[in-house]
Amino acid sequence: MSSIFGRKLKISIFGQSHAEAIGVVIDGFPAGFAVDRAALRAFMARRAPGQHAFATSRKEADEVEFISGLLDDVTCGAPICAVIRNTNTRSEDYRELFDQPRPSHADYPADVRYGGAQDVRGGGHFSGRLTAALCVAGGLCLQYLAQKGIAIGAHIAAIGGVKDTPFDTVKVTAADFLGGTFPVLNEAAGDAMRAVIEAARADGDSVGGIIECAAVGLPAGIGDPMFDGLENRLSAAVFGIPAVRGVEFGNGFEAATLRGSENNDCYYEKDGVIRTCTNNHGGVLGGISTGMPLVFRAAIKPTPSIAKEQQTLNRRTGQVEPLVIRGRHDPCIVPRAVPCVEAACAVVLCDYLI
Amino acid sequence: MSSIFGRKLKISIFGQSHAEAIGVVIDGFPAGFAVDRAALRAFMARRAPGQHAFATSRKEADEVEFISGLLDDVTCGAPICAVIRNTNTRSEDYRELFDQPRPSHADYPADVRYGGAQDVRGGGHFSGRLTAALCVAGGLCLQYLAQKGIAIGAHIAAIGGVKDTPFDTVKVTAADFLGGTFPVLNEAAGDAMRAVIEAARADGDSVGGIIECAAVGLPAGIGDPMFDGLENRLSAAVFGIPAVRGVEFGNGFEAATLRGSENNDCYYEKDGVIRTCTNNHGGVLGGISTGMPLVFRAAIKPTPSIAKEQQTLNRRTGQVEPLVIRGRHDPCIVPRAVPCVEAACAVVLCDYLI
Amino acid sequence: MSSIFGRKLKISIFGQSHAEAIGVVIDGFPAGFAVDRAALRAFMARRAPGQHAFATSRKEADEVEFISGLLDDVTCGAPICAVIRNTNTRSEDYRELFDQPRPSHADYPADVRYGGAQDVRGGGHFSGRLTAALCVAGGLCLQYLAQKGIAIGAHIAAIGGVKDTPFDTVKVTAADFLGGTFPVLNEAAGDAMRAVIEAARADGDSVGGIIECAAVGLPAGIGDPMFDGLENRLSAAVFGIPAVRGVEFGNGFEAATLRGSENNDCYYEKDGVIRTCTNNHGGVLGGISTGMPLVFRAAIKPTPSIAKEQQTLNRRTGQVEPLVIRGRHDPCIVPRAVPCVEAACAVVLCDYLI
Amino acid sequence: MSSIFGRKLKISIFGQSHAEAIGVVIDGFPAGFAVDRAALRAFMARRAPGQHAFATSRKEADEVEFISGLLDDVTCGAPICAVIRNTNTRSEDYRELFDQPRPSHADYPADVRYGGAQDVRGGGHFSGRLTAALCVAGGLCLQYLAQKGIAIGAHIAAIGGVKDTPFDTVKVTAADFLGGTFPVLNEAAGDAMRAVIEAARADGDSVGGIIECAAVGLPAGIGDPMFDGLENRLSAAVFGIPAVRGVEFGNGFEAATLRGSENNDCYYEKDGVIRTCTNNHGGVLGGISTGMPLVFRAAIKPTPSIAKEQQTLNRRTGQVEPLVIRGRHDPCIVPRAVPCVEAACAVVLCDYLI
Repeated sequence: MSSIFGRKLKISIFGQSHAEAIGVVIDGFPAGFAVDRAALRAFMARRAPGQHAFATSRKEADEVEFISGLLDDVTCGAPICAVIRNTNTRSEDYRELFDQPRPSHADYPADVRYGGAQDVRGGGHFSGRLTAALCVAGGLCLQYLAQKGIAIGAHIAAIGGVKDTPFDTVKVTAADFLGGTFPVLNEAAGDAMRAVIEAARADGDSVGGIIECAAVGLPAGIGDPMFDGLENRLSAAVFGIPAVRGVEFGNGFEAATLRGSENNDCYYEKDGVIRTCTNNHGGVLGGISTGMPLVFRAAIKPTPSIAKEQQTLNRRTGQVEPLVIRGRHDPCIVPRAVPCVEAACAVVLCDYLI
Repeated sequence: MSSIFGRKLKISIFGQSHAEAIGVVIDGFPAGFAVDRAALRAFMARRAPGQHAFATSRKEADEVEFISGLLDDVTCGAPICAVIRNTNTRSEDYRELFDQPRPSHADYPADVRYGGAQDVRGGGHFSGRLTAALCVAGGLCLQYLAQKGIAIGAHIAAIGGVKDTPFDTVKVTAADFLGGTFPVLNEAAGDAMRAVIEAARADGDSVGGIIECAAVGLPAGIGDPMFDGLENRLSAAVFGIPAVRGVEFGNGFEAATLRGSENNDCYYEKDGVIRTCTNNHGGVLGGISTGMPLVFRAAIKPTPSIAKEQQTLNRRTGQVEPLVIRGRHDPCIVPRAVPCVEAACAVVLCDYLI
Repeated sequence: MSSIFGRKLKISIFGQSHAEAIGVVIDGFPAGFAVDRAALRAFMARRAPGQHAFATSRKEADEVEFISGLLDDVTCGAPICAVIRNTNTRSEDYRELFDQPRPSHADYPADVRYGGAQDVRGGGHFSGRLTAALCVAGGLCLQYLAQKGIAIGAHIAAIGGVKDTPFDTVKVTAADFLGGTFPVLNEAAGDAMRAVIEAARADGDSVGGIIECAAVGLPAGIGDPMFDGLENRLSAAVFGIPAVRGVEFGNGFEAATLRGSENNDCYYEKDGVIRTCTNNHGGVLGGISTGMPLVFRAAIKPTPSIAKEQQTLNRRTGQVEPLVIRGRHDPCIVPRAVPCVEAACAVVLCDYLI
Repeated sequence: MSSIFGRKLKISIFGQSHAEAIGVVIDGFPAGFAVDRAALRAFMARRAPGQHAFATSRKEADEVEFISGLLDDVTCGAPICAVIRNTNTRSEDYRELFDQPRPSHADYPADVRYGGAQDVRGGGHFSGRLTAALCVAGGLCLQYLAQKGIAIGAHIAAIGGVKDTPFDTVKVTAADFLGGTFPVLNEAAGDAMRAVIEAARADGDSVGGIIECAAVGLPAGIGDPMFDGLENRLSAAVFGIPAVRGVEFGNGFEAATLRGSENNDCYYEKDGVIRTCTNNHGGVLGGISTGMPLVFRAAIKPTPSIAKEQQTLNRRTGQVEPLVIRGRHDPCIVPRAVPCVEAACAVVLCDYLI
């Protein structure tokens, strides 16, 4: 197992959903950087449970305690360890999951991988809760990047079949980054999405979606070819967020349907700056940034924990039996995953830029 | 830059399109393994240029010379260095690309990244030619995996708008892996694809597509959570292939449109083996294999080098001017990218299994 | 900075001497391993401050809190995070060290490296206190190795000019591993060493020494050539302990004075086991274990913090001025470094063997 | 196995003594650097066999062929692959070594490690010949460092019991770096050393020694604490050279015999530069450079291949039997190891500085 990520900036995420705590060690963050605690708290709040009418009823203060690496809220160059205590755990909900692994959760493969020793409570180390630790690291990185003039923002591109207006990949700016707990560019689409989520919840079901993320202010020339490019590292980071099933850059899978003459982004120069007329390439070519907005999308599957009864194997009996998942689960994880995608992007860009 | 990939099995790819040679060092491959040269040659031939009527007219024997690591064609545990000489180079074609970077190629970002020192001839280190080195490594890994009962195969899932029959993600077996230079499950679709390519070529244009790859025989429990899972490493490897713009696992982006009750794959047991009724998860959950076929797809953009005239910046004049790309380019890179995707998959799985 | 070490088993150490806490994340430790807390506590006690008449008067309970990775004291496969709170800190002692960096401490180079943002209190991240975190990781690894029949033990080979009887590098067994807080093979030498330390302490001075470490039960064939051999990884780990100035394997620097015919260790076979008559090579050749006891030594410099007045630069005045170091410091760090060397060795061997 | 070393600058060494070739891939070297081929050739010549009356009679041109990464001898940012063909191999010399592994060579542990598949000819991948590949990488790094005002030089500090004058660790400058094939500061000591070697050779024996290496011009503040410091990385690199048995920094093992008041290096400032009066710390404290000359020593064991008859196990018979090693071997490897130590140092410093 390796829950460590990064080259120069290394983050090491630890914890299980129902352990004492979750957290992260951030090794390699520049010294002398003043952390804005309020901004970090605001960023974390976007991911925190209990914000939406439709979200999990598990409430966690998600108070971040920095137990090393800061001196009067300024980084001192030593590894930063941030700890978030787990306070609101109801472990009795999960006992039977040893027998009846939840469909489309990691329960079963983890059981094989760890020989039954894994912590199944609340999904253990595989829980979406671990993304709070990613958001601590990402939150600091976002602040660092902001000082370099780089902003990162994501929005809900789709939930179920309902689509938001996509970013204008040529003109997107930091002003388009809405933040908040349900960022959509088109409010009507947002309303429709909320209706889709509410309908799923009412049915004891869940629904998936797509997150679109952009980074602006990134200069050209950042990245590396082949295996250490922006696409490689960003996808490796973003797939670290549970429920992500696909990652695409620029027009992504749509490019597969186009001709080169349609897909190619031609260059022009204005005021000494080289830009492209279109941005189908999403700001990255050959692993290296072009100076155009970096744009990628992540597909998020519907929360596999649903209230509805499912028919699935009971390993004790060897029979397919009904399963009703208790515990508290979001009918749609997409809104809370938005800051996680921003965080993953921030960690990767920071790693290149420090 | 890092053209090195892997944890226990590390591959280090080197070379430029018009350098003396390209090649790969494979560090960590098990000792005592007899390499099947004929099988490797056959695998390499699937990627080699000059096979299709519509492919680049650059002919390369792509003869692989092993200059270390083998003793009478058996691995000796020392790093394996394989070299492929570049013989058929026509470097004069590329001079003007310093002035007029090709749209949707790495020419411009590489120029910023390397301060003008990069080798532009034929795309240099960014050339698709480098995937021959990946295929050497992947070819050896495929042979190793075969001994462990694991087979990997990919097919052309789509070219332009024409789609092949997808793999049956539950029932796919090694018998579905066709190999060859234009693997499609549906021959009529294959004919239509070839027509699409030919039409693009006739227009001096190019066209993209999708490659679907599956691995069968992979036991459950392979992988790691968070940043070192199958999805993380596979996507990082596959994005190392030029022209890949998106990677998705299982039903991927489609999952975003589904409800949990539709997307979840329930378990059952038969003859002591645990399987899922459906395989929307593509054989991987939480980074770890489930024992179901591993299935993922990669989006390939249309070849950016097209014969058609394009209007793009001339950096010397600062003006947008016509560009006609000379050199020899495939109107559709998808068929030749199929074994590359298999190779990337093989390298990743081998890294876990050795 | 990287306070992360390891390949498959990765430890990430965090904390500063006077931060809230120090600790370690251990990523990759096998699942299903029952941790013996009492044994770990006993191991930690050997390194803990306040054990010797002559040791620092800083008392720390060094209570290890596992906030993740354990379930009822059994490893669950998720990263293990262990935290040790700093309780007995007297930070006012260190204010002036910004002006007058302590000779032969990291104060000055750290100041240049971190631009003055480093935590100077108690040496910050450079403090010997951080070795408590290494000992947590090492303590777990020792338990794991014990299950595989591998034992690691070190003794004080020398303090000042007084030498202990060295290990018999051919016959050493686990029975020679004394543990405790002042392990010597020759008690008379131990008495003389204590006298040397007491004399240094009485003079407001300090004294260095040598630690000899052995691992027995390690099978032949463990390790790798060139840069990933036992010597490379062990030296890299052991130099992670502050105050280590040299590392040698087998007869080490003495080999430089010998002829090949004197230095070579010839093989023989007894009861089907291949051994060497002598063990000048310290159980490792070409990075790989031979099955003979692994033996190496580490040179430990005298504690640079001495009570005696020193003449050294005051950066504020630009003048050489007297410096009297306050704070609580060991006149000889060697005894407490013994378990740290064992820990470093255990972490490295575990990384190969898991 | 991993014959890959480095963080940002990664070198991947391949080859066996009697393979087609040996070589190195250098990944991450800055683009736009003009390689001085003549200087590289001169550097390589210092390590090349056949230079000394007493050295191995194997003659190798050691012609370096760059097959990638250079464009008109200027680095282009792509990985640099350098190949050295093995031309003068006499493989029949090594057949019996399967049966009778050479004392104090890697033959036996490699046999266990690789299950008998290893290439034993000439020591295979464990041969000192592989250091030629290290010297290619080191030679380029030395040129790069020279442009930054950093010079690295080593001399023969001892052979057998004969000692050269050590570097003045406070005053050493690039003028003290003699280069050549037998660098000693004291010519009389050099004569005595040559006599020691000749005596060993005449007896069919070999002799070890010590190499002292210094780097000057290295600014303060380079390095990292704990596991990524100069000591960690330098020792890991230097132990990559076959026959190295110990590494010490500054006064190293001697520090173990001193008191703090004797060992501490006090600071002073002159012309705005902070220096230390003495340099027992060898220019590095806590993993970070102090701006004083970096000084370390490596112990080199006597060549284990000696002409003299040895009594050692024949694995076929299970008996101890006489062994007479044929092949061509240096009675003292120390002189040829001098540039290798410089190369290892250069690779490490470059990795920090690029």
